[in-house]
Amino acid sequence: MTSPERVAIIGTGMIGTSIGMAAVRAGDAVRGFDTDSDALAKACERAELVPATTLRECVEGSTLVFVCTPVPAVADVVSEALRQAQAAVVSDVASVKARVRQGVSGSTKADELRRYVGGHPMGGSERSGPEHASASVLDGIVWVIDERADGDAADRVEAFVRKVGARPVRMDVERHDRLVAIVSHLPQVASTTLMGLAATEEAGEPEILLLAAGGFRDLTRLAASSPHLWGDILLANGDAVGRAIDLYIERLSSLRELVLAGDAPGVERAFGQAKDARLSLAAKPTVRAGVAVLQVPVPDRPGVLAEVTATMSDAGVNIEDIQIVHSPEGGRGTVHLMVAAGAAEDAERALRERWFEPLRLA
Amino acid sequence: MTSPERVAIIGTGMIGTSIGMAAVRAGDAVRGFDTDSDALAKACERAELVPATTLRECVEGSTLVFVCTPVPAVADVVSEALRQAQAAVVSDVASVKARVRQGVSGSTKADELRRYVGGHPMGGSERSGPEHASASVLDGIVWVIDERADGDAADRVEAFVRKVGARPVRMDVERHDRLVAIVSHLPQVASTTLMGLAATEEAGEPEILLLAAGGFRDLTRLAASSPHLWGDILLANGDAVGRAIDLYIERLSSLRELVLAGDAPGVERAFGQAKDARLSLAAKPTVRAGVAVLQVPVPDRPGVLAEVTATMSDAGVNIEDIQIVHSPEGGRGTVHLMVAAGAAEDAERALRERWFEPLRLA
Repeated sequence: MTSPERVAIIGTGMIGTSIGMAAVRAGDAVRGFDTDSDALAKACERAELVPATTLRECVEGSTLVFVCTPVPAVADVVSEALRQAQAAVVSDVASVKARVRQGVSGSTKADELRRYVGGHPMGGSERSGPEHASASVLDGIVWVIDERADGDAADRVEAFVRKVGARPVRMDVERHDRLVAIVSHLPQVASTTLMGLAATEEAGEPEILLLAAGGFRDLTRLAASSPHLWGDILLANGDAVGRAIDLYIERLSSLRELVLAGDAPGVERAFGQAKDARLSLAAKPTVRAGVAVLQVPVPDRPGVLAEVTATMSDAGVNIEDIQIVHSPEGGRGTVHLMVAAGAAEDAERALRERWFEPLRLA
Repeated sequence: MTSPERVAIIGTGMIGTSIGMAAVRAGDAVRGFDTDSDALAKACERAELVPATTLRECVEGSTLVFVCTPVPAVADVVSEALRQAQAAVVSDVASVKARVRQGVSGSTKADELRRYVGGHPMGGSERSGPEHASASVLDGIVWVIDERADGDAADRVEAFVRKVGARPVRMDVERHDRLVAIVSHLPQVASTTLMGLAATEEAGEPEILLLAAGGFRDLTRLAASSPHLWGDILLANGDAVGRAIDLYIERLSSLRELVLAGDAPGVERAFGQAKDARLSLAAKPTVRAGVAVLQVPVPDRPGVLAEVTATMSDAGVNIEDIQIVHSPEGGRGTVHLMVAAGAAEDAERALRERWFEPLRLA
């Protein structure tokens, strides 16, 4: 049993407000502050946060501070919070960690620095703003904690992370930045670059997108993300992103050589390795914040989807997302239902009562 | 009104059998042949094709031949068909066109060559084999026809394409190959390469895929495609694929420079252009074989999906696929219903009767 904290949230966007709601649910007292008074008002309406009019007022007397501002502001706000709240452990949620720690170190005294613990709750959502916040956003997600942070301070953050239902993973921050550069930042770069290339070609070949089918759409969906947000993230993780792009270019060049050399076995081998890796990834549950996935085998006939969705409706469960996966053999398929993690049990029970056999993935 | 053809289908996989079914529906007589007697038996069971035991028997007396074999075999089979069926126009459906025409030209007399018309029905499906064939696979799809083919022969193929409900587009074959290299072959390469890179990194960093969220999964879905099929396609379009990879690498390198130079406005500009292009693409209908998309605005509350799916069920319409698109503002969303093109009108009417306001996209 951990003792209650007095939690201060600086930056009440989607993730800050969600952390506040989860803390309230866990029995903590929570104050919030945002330079955007509109965002703060919405957050306090949605969550039981006590609004503060200044950063100082927000952190005064707090025991745990989470800095949830956009990436470029994080280091300064963390330093300020460490100065203002002399008894608090201060953490942040930026998706890039080494640069932030450098910034904090540069403007913070050594004895204050011991109370800083870098963190990164992984998962996220395409939605932003306090109106999309929910305590369940944190259910079951991986929450990276800087393994080089002071032991006592890191333990305090880890206890909080467990208390709100997330999975703490201690990791070296340079390593964290290197890994997310490959599995998060590089996909964004690959998608944006492909869309940019096709759009440029379209100027001379207006018919090109006539030939673009489903695969192209899958690959370019991320390209619709916020340019401002992504500019900040890529620049803050510049070295690791640069290296990830280099590795990607290297592999693209090798595949290009195989294709131009007409090396069929070589191309097939490269594709075969990727296929195996993707299939083993597909067998793992989707990590998505606050959402559970129920895999429901169904026959492929009219009406079955209506039965499944009516079952959810009768049980009062909102379907966050739904996907039909056709069996390659035909005749049978699987419906993937995504529901809020907190509603998964109700959903599962209701489905079983109607003789479906859901398998819970995450 | 076009006169009935005597159609020979060589290669009774998914696309060949679908063409056969569409031809039967349009009143043509159809024979089929496949070196895989199992595939041929399944095709004849599914479609009203008359099975032939040899290529020669299949094309004898035919007026229109479609060669639907895997890419590497196409040129030889086309040449053979041109020799065997002296009165027939011969077409093919390979997804790469210049290499195939070269192959056919090299082994065919000039007067026979005038009866060859390269073609490519675009759209496809992740499913393969005659058991997934359907005449509706061709409904509304773009069907590229070699614009340099002999006029009379091309007119015959174009008339057939219209008759079965597809949209003929005459195009230079080198141009076709260049465009599909960018919007079809490059996405496959980009996806496979990203998955291969992450898998290789995983050897040294077993935790990397723990940090892989939804974006990574979107980008690597294509990597699960058939290595054999894709090896054939990339090699047959080697020059154009090599050039597409070059262009991609060039843009990746530029973005890398902007990131390493800390050029925030430059990165934002690149991302902004891609975002605009993606949003305008998203507003266009998905080109997918034989499927219509109904866009249905709905409030974001439990039960609404059940209403939509029950409406389809009551109207006897099978839902091929369904996608929930959340509004970024929250509160309202859009359901994209994919139904067989032939069922779209029934679906639309039924939805309107229940006060939904579907917009038909394709």
